[in-house]
Amino acid sequence: MNEKISYGFSKTVEISFDEAVEKTRNALQSEGFGVLSEIDIDEKLKEKLGVDFRRYKILGACNPPLAYKTLQEDINIGLLLPCNVVVYEADESDKSVVAAVDAKAMLSVVGEKPALDEVADEVNERLRRVVESV
Amino acid sequence: MNEKISYGFSKTVEISFDEAVEKTRNALQSEGFGVLSEIDIDEKLKEKLGVDFRRYKILGACNPPLAYKTLQEDINIGLLLPCNVVVYEADESDKSVVAAVDAKAMLSVVGEKPALDEVADEVNERLRRVVESV
Repeated sequence: MNEKISYGFSKTVEISFDEAVEKTRNALQSEGFGVLSEIDIDEKLKEKLGVDFRRYKILGACNPPLAYKTLQEDINIGLLLPCNVVVYEADESDKSVVAAVDAKAMLSVVGEKPALDEVADEVNERLRRVVESV
Repeated sequence: MNEKISYGFSKTVEISFDEAVEKTRNALQSEGFGVLSEIDIDEKLKEKLGVDFRRYKILGACNPPLAYKTLQEDINIGLLLPCNVVVYEADESDKSVVAAVDAKAMLSVVGEKPALDEVADEVNERLRRVVESV
C-alpha cells in the first residue's frame, strides 16, 4: 500500500517497527546509502518532555558520490543533507510506515540548478526503490 | 557580514572553524535547541571517497516542544527534522561560515498548514538569533 505525501514517498507495511527498521537499513545499503545519523524521536520526546509517543526513527541517509557532487555545486547544500528516511509505528497495531523524503521537492527550495536536478532524480529513483523493497 | 541563501540564513565570521562550531553549539543551547545529530562531512568524504574537502559540520538542531507540536500536526514531518545548522571553513583562510536552514522555506514543500507556519516562524526567529550571535 502506498500513500502520497507532497514531500516524500511512503508505504505501510505489515511488519513490526523493529523489522521495518532492519529492512530499511538493508535496503539503504543496497542502494549505496550510508546512514550518517539516527534519531529516536520517541526517546527524545520522553527524555525532554516526558511524553509517550509512538516509536519513530529518523535515519539520515547519504550517498557519498552524490553528496560530493551537490556540495561542489552549492556549498550550502549541507543544510538539506542527509536525505531523511523515517520509520514509525502505524496507527493500526502490527503495522509500520516507511517514508523517504522527495529530494526533488527539497531541491525546489534551492531554485534552478540543472546539475542538482539530475542528482535529485537519481536520489529519488534510489529512495523509491528503498521504500518499495521494505 | 550576512549573505543571502534562498533556503537559509548565513553569516561569515572571522574566527576558526573549531571556534565557530563551539559558539554555534552554545547559541543553539541558549535558544532551546538540542543537537540530535552531528555529521562531519569532510571526514565522511575522506573515508568513503578518499577526497580532501574543507572542514564542514552539519548539526541537527531540534527544539523538543516545537518538534512535538509539528509531529502532532503532520506525522510525516520527521522527513524534514531536525533543522540543520552548518559550519564550514570559508574560502578565505581564518574565516568560517555559519548557516541555518530557513524552516519556512522547508515547510513550503508541505503545503498549506497554518499551525506549522506558526511553528516555522518561531523556529526561524530563534535560528536567526543563533546565526547572528556567532
